[in-house]
Amino acid sequence: MIRSVDVAVVPALIGARPPAAAAVVIDVLRATSTIAVALANGATSIIPVREPGDAIAVRNRIGRDRVLLCGERNSRLIAGFDLDNSPASYPAEVVAGKTLALTTTNGTRALLEAARDGASVYCGALLNRRAVARALLAGHTGDVLLVCAGNEGTLSLEDLLCAGAIVAALGRDGAAIEPSDAARAAMSLFEGHAKRLTTAIASSTHARALRDAGFAADVAACAELDVLDVVPVYREGIVTALR
Amino acid sequence: MIRSVDVAVVPALIGARPPAAAAVVIDVLRATSTIAVALANGATSIIPVREPGDAIAVRNRIGRDRVLLCGERNSRLIAGFDLDNSPASYPAEVVAGKTLALTTTNGTRALLEAARDGASVYCGALLNRRAVARALLAGHTGDVLLVCAGNEGTLSLEDLLCAGAIVAALGRDGAAIEPSDAARAAMSLFEGHAKRLTTAIASSTHARALRDAGFAADVAACAELDVLDVVPVYREGIVTALR
Repeated sequence: MIRSVDVAVVPALIGARPPAAAAVVIDVLRATSTIAVALANGATSIIPVREPGDAIAVRNRIGRDRVLLCGERNSRLIAGFDLDNSPASYPAEVVAGKTLALTTTNGTRALLEAARDGASVYCGALLNRRAVARALLAGHTGDVLLVCAGNEGTLSLEDLLCAGAIVAALGRDGAAIEPSDAARAAMSLFEGHAKRLTTAIASSTHARALRDAGFAADVAACAELDVLDVVPVYREGIVTALR
Repeated sequence: MIRSVDVAVVPALIGARPPAAAAVVIDVLRATSTIAVALANGATSIIPVREPGDAIAVRNRIGRDRVLLCGERNSRLIAGFDLDNSPASYPAEVVAGKTLALTTTNGTRALLEAARDGASVYCGALLNRRAVARALLAGHTGDVLLVCAGNEGTLSLEDLLCAGAIVAALGRDGAAIEPSDAARAAMSLFEGHAKRLTTAIASSTHARALRDAGFAADVAACAELDVLDVVPVYREGIVTALR
């Protein structure tokens, strides 16, 4: 059984907690949403890396025909890359059978931070909220930490809402899980906005910036709850779909 | 006019923000509640210090007849000290005309952290929520940062609720203040619990620990909203009531 659930509202707070049995990294806008979509559409794996140069090194190592260069800086396609960070850029006809070398401003870095203490790390989004909660309940005992990627070191409303959605799902499906104050605050926030989740997500600072950059459709697409069954799991540098 | 309001949900996140024009340190259970009560009851000033030895040094410098040694470790009276950290220990007949050398686990340390960048720093609690919000609106332009003291480095529900209460008061009394995502999350949390604030405060991790230590009355006393008009302000090492 899962014993407790806590939320690091920004990655900088991961270290303030004892190591967890499992961690979920959440970057609703857009990295973990995009990862879930890419795997649901048949991508073989995703290799999260810190910098664009690291992605190019992955391609050079694995092979140009098998790897797509993916990610964003300032929300936009990186020069010379194949795909930006929009989930709409990852349909099956583009990503099936491919390895994606992905670098984003917040999400992939949070993933690498969360993986440092050796816990199992999942990628959570609103899209696959229920699937991730079920994987946690089925696969782990002990303490679970939800890590919000945030935005350049500050708290993101959409990530905290998603963390709260996961806490709510754990509480509904599981037995007596002890939520920390942060987990209870996140769950309370989610429950207050559950009936108008799309509106709440669209009101966040990051959503407004994405809209200004022309990505309004992404914001709406990432605000859907429980529409994908995929559970991305990060192991030894590679994210694949849990089977 | 105040331009924006942000919330550092734990003191470790103060540095992630540009310096603010004013900061409010919040430790509902119990340091900033106790500071507000002590000043309302006629204490001359409060000198927040990190360690018990620092409090003794203050008393030796200013004089044994004028200084009370105050604070807690593990929620309890420090050996050889005059007063613990319970607001009930600070009636007028004890504290009027006195200087209080105060050291607590979370609140006084958060105060010293928040003061580092030279901003005006206030002590906020539920008790004096409205008074602090009015002082911010009357006295400052630019960006305001609300600093939750938290509990040993982790987020405290009661402090986040109080931060949300202050954001709500700023929004009601002020004009177009831009709340950060963290400020909006805090306000939303507060609004969701406003009608049963005492229950929400009492459910927090720290409240339960205080109850277990025999301080249930303190938890209830600190959950009252807008009952004190005092605005504690920290300047050059000393907290006094704003006049």
